[in-house]
Amino acid sequence: MQRPHPPLYYADYLQLDRLLASQSPKSVEYGKPAHDEMLFIIVHQAYELWFKQILHEMDAVIATFKQDYLEEKAIGIAVHRLSRITEIQKVLIEQLRILETMTPLDFLEFRDLLTPASGFQSLQFRLVENKLGLKPELRKMYDKTAYYSRLSAPHQEIVQEAETEKSLFELIERWLERTPFLEFQGFNFWASYRAAVAQMLENDRRIVQNNATLSAEEKKQQLLELAKTEENFAALFDEEKHRQFLRTGQRRLSYRATHAALLINLYRDEPILHLPFRLLTVLVDIDELLTTWRYRHALMVQRMIGAKIGTGGSSGYPYLRATIESHKVFGDLFNLATFLIPRSALPALPEAFEKNLGFFYNQKP
Amino acid sequence: MQRPHPPLYYADYLQLDRLLASQSPKSVEYGKPAHDEMLFIIVHQAYELWFKQILHEMDAVIATFKQDYLEEKAIGIAVHRLSRITEIQKVLIEQLRILETMTPLDFLEFRDLLTPASGFQSLQFRLVENKLGLKPELRKMYDKTAYYSRLSAPHQEIVQEAETEKSLFELIERWLERTPFLEFQGFNFWASYRAAVAQMLENDRRIVQNNATLSAEEKKQQLLELAKTEENFAALFDEEKHRQFLRTGQRRLSYRATHAALLINLYRDEPILHLPFRLLTVLVDIDELLTTWRYRHALMVQRMIGAKIGTGGSSGYPYLRATIESHKVFGDLFNLATFLIPRSALPALPEAFEKNLGFFYNQKP
Amino acid sequence: MQRPHPPLYYADYLQLDRLLASQSPKSVEYGKPAHDEMLFIIVHQAYELWFKQILHEMDAVIATFKQDYLEEKAIGIAVHRLSRITEIQKVLIEQLRILETMTPLDFLEFRDLLTPASGFQSLQFRLVENKLGLKPELRKMYDKTAYYSRLSAPHQEIVQEAETEKSLFELIERWLERTPFLEFQGFNFWASYRAAVAQMLENDRRIVQNNATLSAEEKKQQLLELAKTEENFAALFDEEKHRQFLRTGQRRLSYRATHAALLINLYRDEPILHLPFRLLTVLVDIDELLTTWRYRHALMVQRMIGAKIGTGGSSGYPYLRATIESHKVFGDLFNLATFLIPRSALPALPEAFEKNLGFFYNQKP
Amino acid sequence: MQRPHPPLYYADYLQLDRLLASQSPKSVEYGKPAHDEMLFIIVHQAYELWFKQILHEMDAVIATFKQDYLEEKAIGIAVHRLSRITEIQKVLIEQLRILETMTPLDFLEFRDLLTPASGFQSLQFRLVENKLGLKPELRKMYDKTAYYSRLSAPHQEIVQEAETEKSLFELIERWLERTPFLEFQGFNFWASYRAAVAQMLENDRRIVQNNATLSAEEKKQQLLELAKTEENFAALFDEEKHRQFLRTGQRRLSYRATHAALLINLYRDEPILHLPFRLLTVLVDIDELLTTWRYRHALMVQRMIGAKIGTGGSSGYPYLRATIESHKVFGDLFNLATFLIPRSALPALPEAFEKNLGFFYNQKP
Repeated sequence: MQRPHPPLYYADYLQLDRLLASQSPKSVEYGKPAHDEMLFIIVHQAYELWFKQILHEMDAVIATFKQDYLEEKAIGIAVHRLSRITEIQKVLIEQLRILETMTPLDFLEFRDLLTPASGFQSLQFRLVENKLGLKPELRKMYDKTAYYSRLSAPHQEIVQEAETEKSLFELIERWLERTPFLEFQGFNFWASYRAAVAQMLENDRRIVQNNATLSAEEKKQQLLELAKTEENFAALFDEEKHRQFLRTGQRRLSYRATHAALLINLYRDEPILHLPFRLLTVLVDIDELLTTWRYRHALMVQRMIGAKIGTGGSSGYPYLRATIESHKVFGDLFNLATFLIPRSALPALPEAFEKNLGFFYNQKP
Repeated sequence: MQRPHPPLYYADYLQLDRLLASQSPKSVEYGKPAHDEMLFIIVHQAYELWFKQILHEMDAVIATFKQDYLEEKAIGIAVHRLSRITEIQKVLIEQLRILETMTPLDFLEFRDLLTPASGFQSLQFRLVENKLGLKPELRKMYDKTAYYSRLSAPHQEIVQEAETEKSLFELIERWLERTPFLEFQGFNFWASYRAAVAQMLENDRRIVQNNATLSAEEKKQQLLELAKTEENFAALFDEEKHRQFLRTGQRRLSYRATHAALLINLYRDEPILHLPFRLLTVLVDIDELLTTWRYRHALMVQRMIGAKIGTGGSSGYPYLRATIESHKVFGDLFNLATFLIPRSALPALPEAFEKNLGFFYNQKP
Repeated sequence: MQRPHPPLYYADYLQLDRLLASQSPKSVEYGKPAHDEMLFIIVHQAYELWFKQILHEMDAVIATFKQDYLEEKAIGIAVHRLSRITEIQKVLIEQLRILETMTPLDFLEFRDLLTPASGFQSLQFRLVENKLGLKPELRKMYDKTAYYSRLSAPHQEIVQEAETEKSLFELIERWLERTPFLEFQGFNFWASYRAAVAQMLENDRRIVQNNATLSAEEKKQQLLELAKTEENFAALFDEEKHRQFLRTGQRRLSYRATHAALLINLYRDEPILHLPFRLLTVLVDIDELLTTWRYRHALMVQRMIGAKIGTGGSSGYPYLRATIESHKVFGDLFNLATFLIPRSALPALPEAFEKNLGFFYNQKP
Repeated sequence: MQRPHPPLYYADYLQLDRLLASQSPKSVEYGKPAHDEMLFIIVHQAYELWFKQILHEMDAVIATFKQDYLEEKAIGIAVHRLSRITEIQKVLIEQLRILETMTPLDFLEFRDLLTPASGFQSLQFRLVENKLGLKPELRKMYDKTAYYSRLSAPHQEIVQEAETEKSLFELIERWLERTPFLEFQGFNFWASYRAAVAQMLENDRRIVQNNATLSAEEKKQQLLELAKTEENFAALFDEEKHRQFLRTGQRRLSYRATHAALLINLYRDEPILHLPFRLLTVLVDIDELLTTWRYRHALMVQRMIGAKIGTGGSSGYPYLRATIESHKVFGDLFNLATFLIPRSALPALPEAFEKNLGFFYNQKP
């Protein structure tokens, strides 16, 4: 049904006149048209359009988590928007297949005309990283300079400004830390969990020691493995050790937030924890897809330019390879599986749990 | 290595200032911002960028096939470019999943503000169809008006102009018709093939009739099926019948071009026919992917607006459903499998075949 | 940590000796090995493995919904399992691309050896359809015989037995019908919604009539569209009409269940309706993916055999085409978008709503 | 059309009785059924079925390249079969998404029952690696033992036997080395290419030195980059250096084979080199997809078990991470882009080239 507004035309609404006139191949400008340069431009423009959309969703989610009072409804919407980001990321990865139809030889036809422009100069990609929570100190150096060194002065300013803003990582961490249910009404999650872990490990040790079918060598090997597991848990239960890990960068998530995240993962079947669990899951999904994109992108660059220097003067593939793993933001959530224990070993929740957890979403800080 | 040109900046090269300032949600303009309108704009802009790239590839391939002398090398390049189109199409289909993260209720927040704009007004999509070879007379009527009736006057002109240009379909048909190898040096493909088919059918009939394990009912059923197969082939061998099919629209491809396409399919293992076979295959791929896109798009529209009227005033889903099947361009290539016979039944090629078929690619018309 | 059980070997656990010895190409048996028959066997076996997994998930979900008391937790698990089915379906669709690497000519090498075996004889696929809720009376006839006519006698029995069991469709319908929140504590959803619709339509009419910028022709056209919309809603509000639609097969979902589904869609942002909304969504997803699979499968068959008779003696492509649309099970959920109205027009929920809806999940029948 | 053979039934042809009775969850056997173990079994069985198909294709391609006389037709078929492998690999990667629907907590329900079985014990996966050409000396050690140490004795034998067979890598290398066109009829590819490279580098140096717009620092930087490029090429032109790289493992492909691969990449537009180029491309595709599978698999394992010990007792994620990069087989083909030069700098081919290259495919060794 038509509202009383001037009739809208598809091409005007989408500003196609501008959009479709924004491809100016350098090879054409310099008089040696290279057929594939159009593809090169358009694929990058498509990436930038989608980056804009990702930022649109991230900004909305960040605004949500900046609020002091957070309704459960708002979490549902945040999960929905973060899930949309993952769908976009899947397309970003698929788009690489289109670019891969350009062979290295085709690229060479116009590559020299583009220096020193480079994908490293994508302002929006840097903003995505910063808003997600990739701190400057976690970044790989890029030819011994900061990651933004090749950006224009105004772009550098925007990127650095974004570094100072609260990132999604920090906001989620704060939200986790506020969880009221780590201790309430006589239920102390951490103590219960710790006891359950101790009993599980004790049990495992007894089983190994009493297992007559094992050779001496096998028994020794299994006890060694058990010791490693115990060590892992010991670090989890030792706040001082955790603080040390935070200093060395082995962990990023605060002690309390880690507890909350673990609780959510362990009791995720509780309806009240359904949305929080989906929230943590979709954050790991985003990280995994971003990391997969980095990986596939690095592979593509290797096929495209080999050991050549990138158009932006970077050493290309090795730099990209180095960022894949280290630029994960929610790595601690990835690793939570280390500390999960079987449902059968889980301490039961007190009856009042679910009802009272309504507080979870809208408590005062 | 840097050529002597002014240094290029990523954002300037891609004209990001314009590109990323070309999203103006109507809901913002009218003072009731709807979060999801940004997605709606960007997904459509991404489609239009890719349509531009598809047209870029199609124009290059069309230019190739307009030439009177066609080198084998040129066919290889054409296949490569058409394959790129299929990679783009796969992404276009995946992009629907992003749009599907917008629920019908979210769409309702701004839908009314967009009338009568509609995806039916995409100039570039119509050009893709026309250049591919979707003739006006094959199109479904759209609310009893021409498919371009809702386009602006200048866009209508462009679309109609494209109707008069040689389409890819027509150029490929011409190229097939010129194939020199249907008859040469004493080898008459058509006669050999026809004899092989006759013998195969004769053989099939004898097997059924002599099969003592079949019940009378089964035998009757199998002889009926055989009769249908014979009828199909009869139509293939009868030029008058074929001409009739062309008139009624049951076939589009000329008699001679059909023979050539069949030969290429049957002898595709011959190196000389390798590229022609890949060419026919990629054309069918493009058709299949376009048709799959139409299908998935229609499903999405149904989920999004149900039986409501589309923003452009069309009856939405039913129209879209109707176009899926009927808007295939290379349907005759799809159906070629009907007439393939086992390799063991294929007449052998004369020795001189391969060598002399060099003519295929660059003979005079 | 190792429990005291005899050590397990990967190949034994997966019974690979049997699994990998279960491919016996007929072309090998008959002395004319066809390289591609192995692919043909393995792709079908992979389908059957996944069908088994789909049935495993469906059976669990059906068992859940057969319960009279349904906890919210159980809904979460059901949604999770149904989502897994959608992930499997995506792979089933992708698998077609592997099969498409077999060309029609390669298929002809062994096709005749397989008659009258046919994918139509897949017991598990028929079970998936039946358990989902594809009733016999909704199925397309297959060469004028029942869909199970080519199955072996014991398989026919299983399939027919499954017809008599409660299907997922019926169980979901019952679950929807039991929704307590259509009327409670003074809030009558249906009356409120109906009033909101009436006002919206009234408003639309006034806007059109007072719009001075419209030509007489445009105004007439828009009023016509409005009339169609009104008619759609009238049918929704008229139980007698709905019953008639049920009889003719235009609708499948009962009047009361339709109301509940609509309410869930309209108020899906309410945390209490979050899981029910995801449940309805994933059911539509399953239907859409199944339908997409049918579509892509039909296309592939057309490319593979053209207008030939299928190995099972069916008329192949036309039959497959016919089933795509008509074999949708949750079509009424697909079409719900027809009746959604903007959030701004939605009647507000009473305050007590959310709290009391806890009953929704565990009320007595 | 039915041949005179006993009628075949779908379930018999596919041996579904066995196939669908080969899932025996340990959790059921031990009396504590875990719903998700069925998924765990079936996804691994699906992987093994596809591995069998990959081996089927690889064996056929290996048999082809073992021939001394190789027809061009045979190369086309080999490319086709290798392309099928890539389609299978894409599905193998997608299948991980299904497995990811099993959460770590669900896995814990039955994980302990499976020790010490492990995916590391997949015989077929090891065979795929060995037949591709992953030499034992290139493999990462696995807990300080050989990769096959956890296989059963008979499986170890099969795997070690496969190590001694000619791998695809070696056969392709031999095929490349035999290329007749590196020198013939007065055209010396290597000398021409070398001269072209020298001129290109010389030209680059002059441009930098004469570029008045560069600062001293920029000029220095660019000359440094240029020096790196020159060094890369120097190594390519120095057979002694190449031999040294072969010894240290920095290169795997022989000097002569590298030249041939480079020529094929540089002149890939020549119809005669069309199939060889596709062959090299699909080999890199296979490597890239295998590597991507390893990457995604490692990520999934990290999400599933964190820093826990794998069921087979391995240290899980770190081992898997380490194999991703190092287990590439055709890395030298990946890196060829380093040495490509623009078409405009390419030495022209002699006229007789194409015609005479027919020898390429069927020359005596």
